[in-house]
Amino acid sequence: MATLGDIAVSAAINLLSAFLFLLAFAILRLQPFNDRVYFPKWYLKGLRSSPSRSGAFVRRIVNLDFRSYIRFLNWMPEALKMPERELVDHAGLDSAVYLRIYLMGVCLYRVIPLLLDGYMHICFNVSSQASVSEWWLKIFVPIAFLAWAILVPVNYTNDTLKVAQLVSNVTASDIDKLSISNIPLKSQRFWTHLVMAYAFTFWTCYVLLREYEKVASMRLQFLSSESRRPDQFTVLVRNVPPDPDETVSELVEHFFLVNHPDHYLTHQVVRNANKLASLVKKKKTKQNWLDYYQLKYSRNQLQRPQKKTGFLGLCGEKVDAIDHQTSEIWKLTKEIEEEREKVLNDPKSIMPAAFVSFKTRWGAAVCAQTQQSRNPTLWLTEWAPEPRDVYWQNLSIPYVSLSVRRLIIAVAFFFLTFFFMIPIASVQALASIEGIEKRAPFLKPVIEIKFIKSVIQGFLPGIALKLFLMFLPTILMFMSKFEGFVSLSSLERRSATRYYIFLIINVFLGSILTGAAFEQLNSFIKQSANEIPKTIGVAVPMKATFFITYIMVDGWAGIAGEVLMLKPLIIYHLKNFFLVKTEKDREEAMDPGSLGFDTGEPRIQLYFLLGLVYATVTPALLPFIIIFFAFAFVVFRHQIINVYNQEYESGAAFWPDVHGRVIAALVISQLALMGLMSTKRASQSTPFLIALPVLTIWFHMFCEGRYKSAFVKYPLEEAMMKDTLERSREPNFNVKAYLQSAYIHPVFKGDDDDEDDYMRGKEETESVLVPTKRLSRKNTPVPSKISGGSSPEAVKKGEP
Amino acid sequence: MATLGDIAVSAAINLLSAFLFLLAFAILRLQPFNDRVYFPKWYLKGLRSSPSRSGAFVRRIVNLDFRSYIRFLNWMPEALKMPERELVDHAGLDSAVYLRIYLMGVCLYRVIPLLLDGYMHICFNVSSQASVSEWWLKIFVPIAFLAWAILVPVNYTNDTLKVAQLVSNVTASDIDKLSISNIPLKSQRFWTHLVMAYAFTFWTCYVLLREYEKVASMRLQFLSSESRRPDQFTVLVRNVPPDPDETVSELVEHFFLVNHPDHYLTHQVVRNANKLASLVKKKKTKQNWLDYYQLKYSRNQLQRPQKKTGFLGLCGEKVDAIDHQTSEIWKLTKEIEEEREKVLNDPKSIMPAAFVSFKTRWGAAVCAQTQQSRNPTLWLTEWAPEPRDVYWQNLSIPYVSLSVRRLIIAVAFFFLTFFFMIPIASVQALASIEGIEKRAPFLKPVIEIKFIKSVIQGFLPGIALKLFLMFLPTILMFMSKFEGFVSLSSLERRSATRYYIFLIINVFLGSILTGAAFEQLNSFIKQSANEIPKTIGVAVPMKATFFITYIMVDGWAGIAGEVLMLKPLIIYHLKNFFLVKTEKDREEAMDPGSLGFDTGEPRIQLYFLLGLVYATVTPALLPFIIIFFAFAFVVFRHQIINVYNQEYESGAAFWPDVHGRVIAALVISQLALMGLMSTKRASQSTPFLIALPVLTIWFHMFCEGRYKSAFVKYPLEEAMMKDTLERSREPNFNVKAYLQSAYIHPVFKGDDDDEDDYMRGKEETESVLVPTKRLSRKNTPVPSKISGGSSPEAVKKGEP
Repeated sequence: MATLGDIAVSAAINLLSAFLFLLAFAILRLQPFNDRVYFPKWYLKGLRSSPSRSGAFVRRIVNLDFRSYIRFLNWMPEALKMPERELVDHAGLDSAVYLRIYLMGVCLYRVIPLLLDGYMHICFNVSSQASVSEWWLKIFVPIAFLAWAILVPVNYTNDTLKVAQLVSNVTASDIDKLSISNIPLKSQRFWTHLVMAYAFTFWTCYVLLREYEKVASMRLQFLSSESRRPDQFTVLVRNVPPDPDETVSELVEHFFLVNHPDHYLTHQVVRNANKLASLVKKKKTKQNWLDYYQLKYSRNQLQRPQKKTGFLGLCGEKVDAIDHQTSEIWKLTKEIEEEREKVLNDPKSIMPAAFVSFKTRWGAAVCAQTQQSRNPTLWLTEWAPEPRDVYWQNLSIPYVSLSVRRLIIAVAFFFLTFFFMIPIASVQALASIEGIEKRAPFLKPVIEIKFIKSVIQGFLPGIALKLFLMFLPTILMFMSKFEGFVSLSSLERRSATRYYIFLIINVFLGSILTGAAFEQLNSFIKQSANEIPKTIGVAVPMKATFFITYIMVDGWAGIAGEVLMLKPLIIYHLKNFFLVKTEKDREEAMDPGSLGFDTGEPRIQLYFLLGLVYATVTPALLPFIIIFFAFAFVVFRHQIINVYNQEYESGAAFWPDVHGRVIAALVISQLALMGLMSTKRASQSTPFLIALPVLTIWFHMFCEGRYKSAFVKYPLEEAMMKDTLERSREPNFNVKAYLQSAYIHPVFKGDDDDEDDYMRGKEETESVLVPTKRLSRKNTPVPSKISGGSSPEAVKKGEP
Repeated sequence: MATLGDIAVSAAINLLSAFLFLLAFAILRLQPFNDRVYFPKWYLKGLRSSPSRSGAFVRRIVNLDFRSYIRFLNWMPEALKMPERELVDHAGLDSAVYLRIYLMGVCLYRVIPLLLDGYMHICFNVSSQASVSEWWLKIFVPIAFLAWAILVPVNYTNDTLKVAQLVSNVTASDIDKLSISNIPLKSQRFWTHLVMAYAFTFWTCYVLLREYEKVASMRLQFLSSESRRPDQFTVLVRNVPPDPDETVSELVEHFFLVNHPDHYLTHQVVRNANKLASLVKKKKTKQNWLDYYQLKYSRNQLQRPQKKTGFLGLCGEKVDAIDHQTSEIWKLTKEIEEEREKVLNDPKSIMPAAFVSFKTRWGAAVCAQTQQSRNPTLWLTEWAPEPRDVYWQNLSIPYVSLSVRRLIIAVAFFFLTFFFMIPIASVQALASIEGIEKRAPFLKPVIEIKFIKSVIQGFLPGIALKLFLMFLPTILMFMSKFEGFVSLSSLERRSATRYYIFLIINVFLGSILTGAAFEQLNSFIKQSANEIPKTIGVAVPMKATFFITYIMVDGWAGIAGEVLMLKPLIIYHLKNFFLVKTEKDREEAMDPGSLGFDTGEPRIQLYFLLGLVYATVTPALLPFIIIFFAFAFVVFRHQIINVYNQEYESGAAFWPDVHGRVIAALVISQLALMGLMSTKRASQSTPFLIALPVLTIWFHMFCEGRYKSAFVKYPLEEAMMKDTLERSREPNFNVKAYLQSAYIHPVFKGDDDDEDDYMRGKEETESVLVPTKRLSRKNTPVPSKISGGSSPEAVKKGEP
């Protein structure tokens, strides 16, 4: 078992690495040639232009102003400066609400700036836009305060562990003396823990309620303040039944003309352009290679570049690279042309799904919320996702296939989750001192060196876990895609749910049970699954030190690594060197990335879980959690302001999930405490804990009933208000032309149109504040206003 | 432990009592003076008139035709004669579908008639309207066949129990030899049970799927074939927010004029008439007493009846009864008048709820399925229940109060469920031979008489349980009312769910665990709740004989008692003697009752649970279950055709609950089998059982997704079709007048209007086949067509 000394070493290592990351970041971000890596958001917004254009050559690449290095942490207060309302305008509601998750963990808005103020003697004022109570009163700071003020003294003033150490040679660290383990069996002191469990639960629920309320009102405000968007008028219809006499398009038109006669406007059938999209993608890769060879040739005109045609260019015939790529591209262009023709003219490529648009928001709201057909598996309607949020590949999956896919994925996920445990357990067993000594006795002298021992115990288990987790999100995302969700946001939400379950079972339970199992000489291993609460309860206090290390490795150092953005940095410079010819290429070389809700959110939730579970058991863990939340909040606020470019905007539709998971963490923490206390024979107080999960689940149901519909439905009152307002403001606006080609597969909106699209987009969006200089907007197919007529014609007008 | 002999005695007793009940029924029902007790449905339908009017006096009271007594069972084939479609017309969809639950348990449509045919030499033909597969292929008959063909031989050809009996003096009955208990530990024969468990599950799921499909299509057909009903056009709006400037009525009108401008027609505010209703009820009771005294006086004119004014007429001053009642009634009439005025004019009596009617079914369907306001707890809309289905008292409960009430009831129900177990357990312990001998040793010689011993063992535990359960439904219904549901049908559904949970925990688990606990010398009692599956699994085979007795007492004799209708019979004759003066009074004295979904359905479900749990464990129990289902089906079919008068028609809205509970029973049976097999150390085969509950739950989710919305939503396609049809058929129909007073509190529709209402109702309903002679229709306030104008005026026109 790790002692305080081990933790100190681990903390020092992690603090050092975090500091090094931050230092590297501070230096790198000030270099002008990295500007596009660390501030891509501003380039995309058109508010920043390449510094390389002006000034001396050296100045363009390296920052020689030493004053700026001294204030190397001043990105932190800068990140905190922007008020939340402005942040919503700048980065969207999704990002702003995502930050509130960190904020929910801890309050720091005013603490960190004050600390940094002292360091940098910079004065700025952020206190005006938010009241103190708004920011201060979040979950973990008051809990930590209470726990340290009450639980720690109660735990510390016993000597159970000391006695146990003497009697049966149990090892215990100093941290354990602050924990519930130090309280003797049947003690009356457990009443304190009981009362604290109630206090923590009520406090957490109160914060959750306030947050839910706040986020719901932010969402409604955001939706109502937004300008016209095609998805407000559009409904996605799936499972259009086959009809021998009519095409899908005719069928859809007739059905909606009959059943929504006053509101139906137009529709857009969905075509299966998956093959076309992959061809276009292939062509783009080839084009990149051609650019690379041409650039190479232009730099060294003596030798025409050559390549091998075989696997990965490693084997096969040698050919002239430029000629080869040109002919390949020509072939692909022709293929694309044929495929495009086929998709547009072949009725088989039309899927039984359509985007149906209505004259008013009211009509769309009605259609999205009601059942259309007798058979509830036909004519399924739902809100159309934003055009850029649509996941086109999945639009054509029929209903029956969907539920079979769901079963398959459920079973697959089950196996993934439970078979993943085996490698983790074995690696952790290997990584323990005893494991290494047993399997590789010759390493014993090296390991016994005190410093290396500390490193192994404090560092390796965390790293092993981390490596395992790296490959997971891709698999989970694939699963969600296979399951058939039709929007990127729902794909991410689903993956996040899966990832969270995975983290609970493998990281939380896996670490607690198998780790503890090895420590406690296999005493648990063969126990039945029914005894889990007790088993967890007993193991929880023993793993406190492991989780403290985990928080430091994954939380502190990991977050500091995030801000450094090493991967995008390297890729950008490689692309910049090999591919970039024009300013537009440079734009494309930027990879701002996005928040990554599917992996980021479950990771935060794991910290919530740890915080809540250990709040009553080992309060010594709480400060580490608080530091994580505070640090992560600043880092992600900086990233959101300067780097990330969200692919879509779901209007914080993920909040019910976030809420539900914190509730789940609460219930787990209560069950673990019940298990722990029942093994401590606190039979007087344990029964009183039963009410806690009941109340918590009731609270959850209450919140769902009260707020959830704000995240899934669109109230008619709202729709009618916006419709009326718009009709009086722009009585002659042509909605049909506006919606005509909003939902066309992005592959039909060729790159050539990007510019026009963007200019048109600009005319329509009223919320942009500053004139822009950017040339193309990626992944944002704004509907074209000019193209008219029915859909196939409109599509044909795209890239010839 | 009960032996085969005990069971035979018990079976004989129960068969005898069932036979006696049936005989009594056969004799009583043929007497003309009981006609209104056993055929009230036909009176209410107007298809039967009092036989007392014609013929000789004796003939009017006693049936002297002895030929009819010989064929005393011929009500059975008569009950089976009516085809299902006609039954739907005759008794409504609810009743017809309710019968399908029994039918799902077993098929007998063609078996029983054939048996009876042999008995009575009566020939009739029912085979035309349903194919054999439709009726034959239900859950338990094939399961029983399979189980007896395969499991029973596999179980019987072991001698584990014989050996155990020799070695450790364990007692085992012959039934146990047919059960899984007879298979030795670690035997390979458990594979048979595994395969059978899969077969039974798949078979049950297949039947459930077919039934769900059939019932859903029946419901849709029923709804679409129905004539115009006010609830098709009406939506119940609750939680209208308070407004300082407008009344609720104005507010509702404005809100819907704004948000549903093209569809809103009219509305009806809800008034708090609870006090008025109770006053009217009180007056009616007094009126009954007055009638009684007047009748008494008219029979014996020498002495004016007197009564005491105190508690229950037992103490206090003696007064002239007729004068006293008359003055009391006069006082009440005045009070009612005042209260009526108050309710109609006091704005405080207007509740924040309203019935909003729309011009078309489409408009109502849209409003009921969508969210109206930004705040999801305001302007809650849902389908209005049928006017006679509305539970008026609950219309005014605000949202927050609702969720608090739900928590309170959840906790109360929890305590009710778990504290109820204590008396049952102690009574059962007392009622066992050992218990009685221990506590009352002087009874020993009596008890040891073989016959009495059998009676005690076979009869008492069942009776004790039955008595406990008698008082429960009232409590559960009160709970549901307190929870705030707004329609009788949903109240009954909720009570049924609660009752089912209660039955599972107290009857099923309670009998298995505590009973077994006493038998097995308290070895289970202090075990933790975690081990439940194993504990149940072990105990299940031991309690087979107990449940066989239970089925005979509760199922066989209980159902035979049901058909006798002793309570209504006595009450009718008492009323007839003391109160009835006119033919109308006689009508009112009839108490046809209704199906009682809240108690009946959970009881059937208990038999499903027993059947499924014991199918793999003790197949000997299955024949008893099959006989129960067959018998109950015939009896209830008879009752539905001849007796019950449903208070409301929900269109089989309860089917998803029925389906869900059979699934729950399946999962419980699978878990019990897993528990049992894991204690039998069948470690090779047990893991393969894990897939079963997963598949079952997935199947449930699939069915819910596929069919459930047919029971909760109203498809727009359907609504539009009916609207269009109606518009072309009756272009000048005045919907507003039709709906004007549909949703007026029944207390405002004085009894005087009953007749008119009914006549109007008749004009509107097109599906009545035969002219009616009945005079009043109770509990069926059909909307008045004549009264026009806005609601308060319309109300005032009611009883002056």
